[in-house]
Amino acid sequence: MDNGNVTPCDLLIVRGEVLTLDADDRRIRDGAVAVSDGLVLDVGPARELSARYRPERVLDAGGSVVLPGLVNAHTHAAMTLFRGLADDLPLMDWLHNHIFPAEEKLTEDWVYWGTLLACAEMILSGTTCFCDMYLFEHKVAQAADEAGMRALVGEVLYDFPSPHYGPLENGLRFTEDLIAEWKDNPLVRIAVEPHAPYTCSPELIRTCFEIAQRHDVPMVIHLSENEAEVAEVVRRYGKRPVAHLADLGVLNDRVIADHCVALDENDMDLLARHGVHVVHNPESNLKLTSGIAPVPALLERGVNVALGTDGCASNNNLDLFAEMDVCAKIHKAAASDPTVLDARTVLSMATVRGARALGFGDVLGRIEKGAAADLIVVDFRKPHLTPAYDPVSHLVYAAKGSDVRHSVIAGRVVMEDRELLTLDVEKICAEVRAIARKVR
Amino acid sequence: MDNGNVTPCDLLIVRGEVLTLDADDRRIRDGAVAVSDGLVLDVGPARELSARYRPERVLDAGGSVVLPGLVNAHTHAAMTLFRGLADDLPLMDWLHNHIFPAEEKLTEDWVYWGTLLACAEMILSGTTCFCDMYLFEHKVAQAADEAGMRALVGEVLYDFPSPHYGPLENGLRFTEDLIAEWKDNPLVRIAVEPHAPYTCSPELIRTCFEIAQRHDVPMVIHLSENEAEVAEVVRRYGKRPVAHLADLGVLNDRVIADHCVALDENDMDLLARHGVHVVHNPESNLKLTSGIAPVPALLERGVNVALGTDGCASNNNLDLFAEMDVCAKIHKAAASDPTVLDARTVLSMATVRGARALGFGDVLGRIEKGAAADLIVVDFRKPHLTPAYDPVSHLVYAAKGSDVRHSVIAGRVVMEDRELLTLDVEKICAEVRAIARKVR
Repeated sequence: MDNGNVTPCDLLIVRGEVLTLDADDRRIRDGAVAVSDGLVLDVGPARELSARYRPERVLDAGGSVVLPGLVNAHTHAAMTLFRGLADDLPLMDWLHNHIFPAEEKLTEDWVYWGTLLACAEMILSGTTCFCDMYLFEHKVAQAADEAGMRALVGEVLYDFPSPHYGPLENGLRFTEDLIAEWKDNPLVRIAVEPHAPYTCSPELIRTCFEIAQRHDVPMVIHLSENEAEVAEVVRRYGKRPVAHLADLGVLNDRVIADHCVALDENDMDLLARHGVHVVHNPESNLKLTSGIAPVPALLERGVNVALGTDGCASNNNLDLFAEMDVCAKIHKAAASDPTVLDARTVLSMATVRGARALGFGDVLGRIEKGAAADLIVVDFRKPHLTPAYDPVSHLVYAAKGSDVRHSVIAGRVVMEDRELLTLDVEKICAEVRAIARKVR
Repeated sequence: MDNGNVTPCDLLIVRGEVLTLDADDRRIRDGAVAVSDGLVLDVGPARELSARYRPERVLDAGGSVVLPGLVNAHTHAAMTLFRGLADDLPLMDWLHNHIFPAEEKLTEDWVYWGTLLACAEMILSGTTCFCDMYLFEHKVAQAADEAGMRALVGEVLYDFPSPHYGPLENGLRFTEDLIAEWKDNPLVRIAVEPHAPYTCSPELIRTCFEIAQRHDVPMVIHLSENEAEVAEVVRRYGKRPVAHLADLGVLNDRVIADHCVALDENDMDLLARHGVHVVHNPESNLKLTSGIAPVPALLERGVNVALGTDGCASNNNLDLFAEMDVCAKIHKAAASDPTVLDARTVLSMATVRGARALGFGDVLGRIEKGAAADLIVVDFRKPHLTPAYDPVSHLVYAAKGSDVRHSVIAGRVVMEDRELLTLDVEKICAEVRAIARKVR
């Protein structure tokens, strides 16, 4: 076996059923993935790859499915700190009497520990990449980097002073500094993130877009989350939020629009025409009574729709497996059509479509030679995943985040047999519990 | 410590936060539950109970929450065999080209192994009691008994011949035989189960009801699952399904009506007036595009609404934690009111309301002296359950079935530290995989 043609590699994942999610949707039973220098070096039958490569390290995927890591395309990671602090309340009561007062106490230390907790939860449930919007985002970037997670992060910007940076001009400067600071990081990228059309002046949104264009980074914005937002923007600007942004000239394919629940036909046409990426957050939209976003209609128009969990104050978890399940089901009921949002489409929203939305589309979301080695291994040797007629159906309709066994990000094993290798979970949980006592 | 006043007991669960779900919703931090002869002997602070009792066995619940076991009030357990066999298809294509052909091959052996698999999955995700409707139900009863699960089971009855018992009269005789056979079993009870108003003649439904009355057992029926059923029943009988049953004189508080999605005001009034128990199956209703049942309106009328997963062909799992989460969220969106179906109400649907629906209401669904010792211990030492401001919120909005650590049914430990003590999971999964090869 071991002859002159054997190539060394960093990592070989063996014996799993590999779902490449590549253009041909290739699946390899008893497959393997060879990894070197953070990239997929080869993918194919385990027997062939075992003969072809001499790995530094082997991960066993027996009885398991290997697929690209999941992408959580919209969250506020540090809001793990407020998980379950207040639920089942009217929106304004919840925000003004519970969330905002808690957020007033935020420090960069809190954001750091809350984000590390989120990273632990995300890795444990199969997410390898996330997009964040919050305060003290330098600490989010630091936490993601320490966790070894891929992330697109950005400081939230709005017209009023921030508990972090104070006056707006500081926030704009802070964002540009962040962009410079993380420019060459292989995992963490920075976005410009105006909060929403009802909290940001047209000037602020235009400035944000110009910064994003100048640095060639994405712009992230909450958009048309509910009817109340639409009514407020119509009252102020005489047009709906999407049309308002279109008229400001700030819609293109670097824009990531979160929620997009309250859309009319013209809004959807505008999003499609400008190549805007939409992030759907079904569980948060249900819990906050925002409604059900018209995802099938957006997909029909060719809009790239990704999936996100939103923050833990309105979900209350970061598990994309649960989010996929809910996503696939609610749209069937909403459309009275069981063929809507089939399992393959929903899985693509949590993988390749998410990668494309966040600007990682060239390297992420599929397992093929040259792609980033961001991979998860899901253990199918469980009663609730038995029998297994179709692994994609199971991933969407039956699997839980807790079924994820190994996780690899940029070729680095960040979880092996459910043990986190980059994070000290006990310390993180203890720190967050101490913060929670101050929150309450 | 060990003096003359120390009482022996079978089991002591210690160091958990005990959610009694009793009339006062008593919660005991660092609490304990003493169990003897299958019943709760005492509940209180761990220090006191540790001094008061000398247990045969101790279960540690440190960092965990102790609560009544969950009740899955509607399922077709053996349909685990068809989990993920076909999804995302039009209803008639799914039924006639996938599910019915698979069910034609059913044997009592298949039902036995499929039900054991379901029991394994249910115990692993916190369910201690279930209500079943399917074919070859003597094997379901046997499987539940072997698993040590509490169950209400009954053979499905309809106008056409059954793949199990052949002509209808055999089915009625079979049901009465089952009732006699399981009469004194402490865990398994039998119900009379006409399938639905559109598959059962008025005479059959009346006969079923009379049998149920005569033996003092529940009657289980699918009712008003979707608008197509309503239209069909209106066409045949000139009235809607609920009114049809009311006029047949077969509605009272021994009736368990599954689904009840397509209801008008009069239907809801009739269900309330007759004390019918309703089982809500939100995930199946979404996936099969049946719609969203008017649960808040039913609860307002005082109807007892329980929670079920339905079968694995339309869900595709038996995890009541996921079901609670979806239930709490979709009704908020449907009602545009975030206060609807709060976490406490939803948890009661999966516990005490389920117990009441299935006729176990006198002994199940709360932790207090004299109640059945059907208890689960949920491990809160997890990133996704940190911090923990409110355990009830976490149980509904953040916990997964996989967080259940121990399970006790009628005082017997059926799972300890996620190891199933009554079932051989590897053998069950292997048998089901062998059956699945024949299904396909």
